Amino acid sequence: MTTLGQLAAHVGAELDAINETDSEIEIQQVATLDDAQEGEIAFLFDKKYRKFLQVTHASAVILQERYRHDCPVPAIITSDPYLAYARIATLLNKPMRANGKVHPSAVIDPLAKVDSSAEISANTVIEKGVMIGANTLIGPGCVVSEGAYIGDYSHLVANVTICHHVSIGKRALIHPGAVIGSDGFGLARDNGAWVKIPQIGSVQLGDDVEVGANTTIDRGALKDTIIENGVKLDNQVQIAHNVRIGENSAIAGCTGVAGSATIGKRCMLGGGIGIAGHIEIADDVTITGMSVVTKSIREEGSYSSGWPVRETKAWRKTVAKVHRLDSKK
Amino acid sequence: MTTLGQLAAHVGAELDAINETDSEIEIQQVATLDDAQEGEIAFLFDKKYRKFLQVTHASAVILQERYRHDCPVPAIITSDPYLAYARIATLLNKPMRANGKVHPSAVIDPLAKVDSSAEISANTVIEKGVMIGANTLIGPGCVVSEGAYIGDYSHLVANVTICHHVSIGKRALIHPGAVIGSDGFGLARDNGAWVKIPQIGSVQLGDDVEVGANTTIDRGALKDTIIENGVKLDNQVQIAHNVRIGENSAIAGCTGVAGSATIGKRCMLGGGIGIAGHIEIADDVTITGMSVVTKSIREEGSYSSGWPVRETKAWRKTVAKVHRLDSKK
Amino acid sequence: MTTLGQLAAHVGAELDAINETDSEIEIQQVATLDDAQEGEIAFLFDKKYRKFLQVTHASAVILQERYRHDCPVPAIITSDPYLAYARIATLLNKPMRANGKVHPSAVIDPLAKVDSSAEISANTVIEKGVMIGANTLIGPGCVVSEGAYIGDYSHLVANVTICHHVSIGKRALIHPGAVIGSDGFGLARDNGAWVKIPQIGSVQLGDDVEVGANTTIDRGALKDTIIENGVKLDNQVQIAHNVRIGENSAIAGCTGVAGSATIGKRCMLGGGIGIAGHIEIADDVTITGMSVVTKSIREEGSYSSGWPVRETKAWRKTVAKVHRLDSKK
Repeated sequence: MTTLGQLAAHVGAELDAINETDSEIEIQQVATLDDAQEGEIAFLFDKKYRKFLQVTHASAVILQERYRHDCPVPAIITSDPYLAYARIATLLNKPMRANGKVHPSAVIDPLAKVDSSAEISANTVIEKGVMIGANTLIGPGCVVSEGAYIGDYSHLVANVTICHHVSIGKRALIHPGAVIGSDGFGLARDNGAWVKIPQIGSVQLGDDVEVGANTTIDRGALKDTIIENGVKLDNQVQIAHNVRIGENSAIAGCTGVAGSATIGKRCMLGGGIGIAGHIEIADDVTITGMSVVTKSIREEGSYSSGWPVRETKAWRKTVAKVHRLDSKK
Repeated sequence: MTTLGQLAAHVGAELDAINETDSEIEIQQVATLDDAQEGEIAFLFDKKYRKFLQVTHASAVILQERYRHDCPVPAIITSDPYLAYARIATLLNKPMRANGKVHPSAVIDPLAKVDSSAEISANTVIEKGVMIGANTLIGPGCVVSEGAYIGDYSHLVANVTICHHVSIGKRALIHPGAVIGSDGFGLARDNGAWVKIPQIGSVQLGDDVEVGANTTIDRGALKDTIIENGVKLDNQVQIAHNVRIGENSAIAGCTGVAGSATIGKRCMLGGGIGIAGHIEIADDVTITGMSVVTKSIREEGSYSSGWPVRETKAWRKTVAKVHRLDSKK
Repeated sequence: MTTLGQLAAHVGAELDAINETDSEIEIQQVATLDDAQEGEIAFLFDKKYRKFLQVTHASAVILQERYRHDCPVPAIITSDPYLAYARIATLLNKPMRANGKVHPSAVIDPLAKVDSSAEISANTVIEKGVMIGANTLIGPGCVVSEGAYIGDYSHLVANVTICHHVSIGKRALIHPGAVIGSDGFGLARDNGAWVKIPQIGSVQLGDDVEVGANTTIDRGALKDTIIENGVKLDNQVQIAHNVRIGENSAIAGCTGVAGSATIGKRCMLGGGIGIAGHIEIADDVTITGMSVVTKSIREEGSYSSGWPVRETKAWRKTVAKVHRLDSKK
């Protein structure tokens, strides 16, 4: 059980109590303002939900100073309620932890080295030369291939494939169906047919990397594909060979990054974006969803190229008008 | 064996016989007009194939009244031959059925509750607290995680991952590699780094939902992600946390729906579309492939924003002309 | 060990030696000009790396005649260094080979026929009626469903799903998470609800086909989906039912091809492209990334429709200007 006082202390915020004993209120869970029940803490970070303050059944609310007087229940006052909510939700909902057991159906090569505190779940395959760090949890149906390394406190959720010799840092969270270390798409043309180029590089994931469901990260052709510390990849992201993604960049679902592209630190890429190969994107660049990036971006800032929908008839006229521009001087 | 008379009755249509005994003709399978052999039934729903009527070897054809006189073989007359074909094909090709057996290699937690009529295939993992309904078939390599519920007559084909506490209705059909209930992409920024927001909601799938191969559906941050009855999702669709998709909507391959978007009933979304987060799409909206939706759509109708290709040189001129518009008044 | 002389002979190229014994130099690996160490061979095919020739530690370099005099180490002279590099890298990095063993955890139906030279890895499921060819390697966690056929010298890396009755040729390389033979997205409308159309066709893959990680290829509705010899598909490509892809075409990541589209031979499709259903693309067509193809392309050549990003503010003006075109005459 965690008290409201403990939560406020955890996020370094002021508790705006209504009664003297408010700091002793036990909080079990986070919830939205309109759903919260007794024992739950809600939050306000989008002012359009402000109206729910008056009617909330939450035992407390996380909010900014300026909404303090609208709040009929105890409040945790902070300049960044979203961050405080994230920290409090994490405290109340601990991530899954390894239990040090190996399921009898797991197939572990005698030449693999699994820390005694790690947990290896049912129907998992751990090949030779693999190293699994302390407190790491390998979920059911995963394959960790020859020579791969997985750092401490990491979690492969289920049906994850880690290809040979891939290296994954600490506290990784890899969601189901993700594939790390598949061959890059390297082909040389030979009279119309293709000769495959062996992909002898690998993949290095730093610490605190999250990889979404069914996301794919290819191994390098010669050097490694690099995902730096703190990078967060959503579902169905495709990272091609020899890409480098800088620290703390985040990429939303269905975005593809072509070979040898370099993305800076703290970038935020929306969903469905295509990044061309061999280009560089500076630090602190934001790209809105469904954009196309074909040249390097040298300056931080926000970039876009998505066309919002119109009614199909109107859109067809727009397309025709634009094509007609070509025939004008 | 099914006779032509039975098929006509099954779809409530008239059998336009040529000989008295035609209703007794045995039909084994559906086929195209040009491929069909004796014992097979073909169909005409696109008039460009009308020419094949004269040469078909089909034992019968499903078609509209107006093509009746072009058809040299017995015909099933219906206003909607495509629907009749779907129903007849289903009658002749029964979906796979559970056989009530549990493969010895399956790992089933003693605290899971599997109906005695369900089938659990090889190398499948069923965790504790799971409930598997009657006549449900869990194919090989699937993982059904703690506390998940799967309704009657459902079919997980192979290598499907159902995450913890996800709820799936009756008659679901989940294709290989699909992931249901992975964490939503919830992150709070903290001085350039990211703090993960625990995703404590779940996913609810209604009845008669189909989920394509390698499609991903994230669990909600606080409330659940909701897929209503009769929704059909193609391959590699990405549904983010807290999305709601209304009854009988269908979404084609590679489309992504960002967090908290709401899609109405009976919508038809083409492939490769991006739907922004927190927007609403009305009932009965059609969106053509590769479109971008950044604002709510309040009215039913058809919407588009995809640019059809031109020759690369011509396209580059188009792009340049459009950019030059900015410098004009 | 392979000598420089053997490598030159392997690619039919001239060895430009510096000392008499250079042809006896042993080469272990390929590497980039700047990374290469003694015993490694580098290559030059992009002139921007020419500066590294002077400082390379490579034991030899693969390059064109015109750079011969810039190269201080022995050189393999060829008009196509990229192709020579591909061939040499393949010689030095042999693909994985089957060892003729069946892992005890593999579940193989007694009615499957596995060649005695094939290797079946841990936690793999091989259903009845399956045929696995000579020297074929089925990696861990794969499911090969009823009646499927996999030709000689093929390799399913890990967690691959081959659905029932799919046929795969010789020397296939199928990366993790790929799904071949899932149901096509065939639906008939019935008063707003959907009736599923059984997908009774299958998938045929020719010889020398590579399928990327988490790529999906649907089975045909009535006839088969066809992937011809030598086709290369990158990661997260989606191929819908009844598509035909011609010999030696290559498709980059995240591209989707809708139902019944036909793509010619030797086509090169970039990433993130959408190809509409029921259209035809001629042989030798190149389409640049993120394009949309809604009509048949009858002539070889290069086609595009992607919009490169601008700063978000400028882009919004562009969109507004284009929309305003409609109101002009």
